[in-house]
Amino acid sequence: MKRVLIGGKHSRDMASAAKVAVVSRPPFDEVVIGVRGQGVRMLLGGWRKMMSTASEPSSKVAMPEKESSGGVAEKKEDKGEVMVSNYWGISRPKITREDGTEWPWNCFMPWETYRADLSIDLHKHHVPTTFLDKVAYRTVKLLRIPTDIFFRRRYGCRAMMLETVAAVPGMVGGMLLHLRSLRKFEQSGGWIKALLEEAENERMHLMTMVELVQPKWYERLLVLTVQGVFFNAFFVLYLLSPKLAHRVVGYLEEEAIHSYTEYLKDIDSGTIVNVPAPAIAIDYWRLPKDATLKDVITVIRADEAHHRDVNHFASDIHFQGKELKEAPAPIGYH
Amino acid sequence: MKRVLIGGKHSRDMASAAKVAVVSRPPFDEVVIGVRGQGVRMLLGGWRKMMSTASEPSSKVAMPEKESSGGVAEKKEDKGEVMVSNYWGISRPKITREDGTEWPWNCFMPWETYRADLSIDLHKHHVPTTFLDKVAYRTVKLLRIPTDIFFRRRYGCRAMMLETVAAVPGMVGGMLLHLRSLRKFEQSGGWIKALLEEAENERMHLMTMVELVQPKWYERLLVLTVQGVFFNAFFVLYLLSPKLAHRVVGYLEEEAIHSYTEYLKDIDSGTIVNVPAPAIAIDYWRLPKDATLKDVITVIRADEAHHRDVNHFASDIHFQGKELKEAPAPIGYH
Repeated sequence: MKRVLIGGKHSRDMASAAKVAVVSRPPFDEVVIGVRGQGVRMLLGGWRKMMSTASEPSSKVAMPEKESSGGVAEKKEDKGEVMVSNYWGISRPKITREDGTEWPWNCFMPWETYRADLSIDLHKHHVPTTFLDKVAYRTVKLLRIPTDIFFRRRYGCRAMMLETVAAVPGMVGGMLLHLRSLRKFEQSGGWIKALLEEAENERMHLMTMVELVQPKWYERLLVLTVQGVFFNAFFVLYLLSPKLAHRVVGYLEEEAIHSYTEYLKDIDSGTIVNVPAPAIAIDYWRLPKDATLKDVITVIRADEAHHRDVNHFASDIHFQGKELKEAPAPIGYH
Repeated sequence: MKRVLIGGKHSRDMASAAKVAVVSRPPFDEVVIGVRGQGVRMLLGGWRKMMSTASEPSSKVAMPEKESSGGVAEKKEDKGEVMVSNYWGISRPKITREDGTEWPWNCFMPWETYRADLSIDLHKHHVPTTFLDKVAYRTVKLLRIPTDIFFRRRYGCRAMMLETVAAVPGMVGGMLLHLRSLRKFEQSGGWIKALLEEAENERMHLMTMVELVQPKWYERLLVLTVQGVFFNAFFVLYLLSPKLAHRVVGYLEEEAIHSYTEYLKDIDSGTIVNVPAPAIAIDYWRLPKDATLKDVITVIRADEAHHRDVNHFASDIHFQGKELKEAPAPIGYH
């Protein structure tokens, strides 16, 4: 029986699952289409939020008629997904830009896009004073030696590989703060979200770099090894001393800024061809249609500078014997 | 030297850190105040996003004059925080509601609040058919026995304790998908964010329950133990079989719905006093000012029903031999 094969046997008649509700509620005044409208409504709501302030990419949400037809859902049954999605009430609206082209990304939504703040000071540096500062600084400088030897000036490849590592600390920190918040029955002051945002932003850097450089098999192998080691090492480090952990990340970001600056030099000198920016980068950072690799690297470098600030700031808070939640959390600071 | 003591010795003159920039840029048309405006601008931007669609809680962002005065920052030096915050450019605007009262929460921002979709079907159930389904179902039923014995009908306490567990799977799943996305150089189709949203939503449930029930020392001890065991168990389970892991969570959520329904019965029967809703719940779910415990439990139960859908859906996708990213990610589905 196909139904079992598709979504597992459910206790409700599938017919009811294909039913469509059209609702309109405050505070979101858009029409909701879908069996369990929440997912869609939130998307639309969030979408409207975005559109109401952002001048570009100007877009709208279009709900294809067939989506709202139970009959079609039945016809589509062979494809499997519609039934499950409809039964559990999870569906994705067809999001299109104003020019009619479909919003192609699932890994980030239009209301998560932003304009990078290029006015940020790239030269800020935390001079190591305490013993832990020096440990952090030396560690990062040591880690850079093998990296320089391995990549030399192949900055595209280098950036791609390093982003697979750069996205780890935010996730580990956010997760540990989350678990702590649960254990202690207390709020994190927004720092969980702030660190998870950092991790997601770094992941977006990687998704961009992958469009520019295709990793080779031995590079993929290296990433497996490095992640395995780094994730566990940072996990333990953050448990032992978040103070030191954030300082290390702060210095790593300082190095990242340096690498991207070198990258830009090579683009200017023509050593690296200034190819057109990948579509994902144009959408994520709201870059002009004719943006180039140079623009992309510039905004990524600005992001890294923001992460440098966040992590040095976090470490400073710990050095003052305070908890992160006592200081303002850098929500959306990238 | 106080500066060292406060923020560590920095390579830049502190005076420059207290400098204030007032900028106005598209796509966000609000004034930006702060040394590195990004953090603030995003907050304001996000805030405007929210205000543009939400009818309540109607609010505005007010920037206290003193915040924009470097002189005051110097005077405030003794408190330490301003210096660090200013140097690293991270600051939080004073967010007030329209009635002038300050937005008191750091763990969630106004644009993250929502109205729960109470129209969701509370009785949906995935009938276990495959071997793994049955394993998941029996496991959850077994786990319920000690819980029932320990808590009996003390649902407030029970809910609080269970939320400390319920917030774990989303974080573990989101983190593992994040690491996978980095290792494989491929997008997650929005599922990382979806699972992390689930974890955050469950954490907000806990923050609400804590306002209603103060955990006793032995309960805190129990949470430590349970989290230690459950986090690691679920971590391994998700690595071995995300299919089974999501199914288990799906069934856990079905049990949660049942518990909260019992909770509501006891409120209706008067066994549990229907106290006024805590302030945090009124803000997070946009409840009326005079909302009660019953309203809070009702919206939390609706959230759990959404998480049930998400996790059964995720498991169904795996049962079809597909990857999560091939199906629509339930962004904002709670």
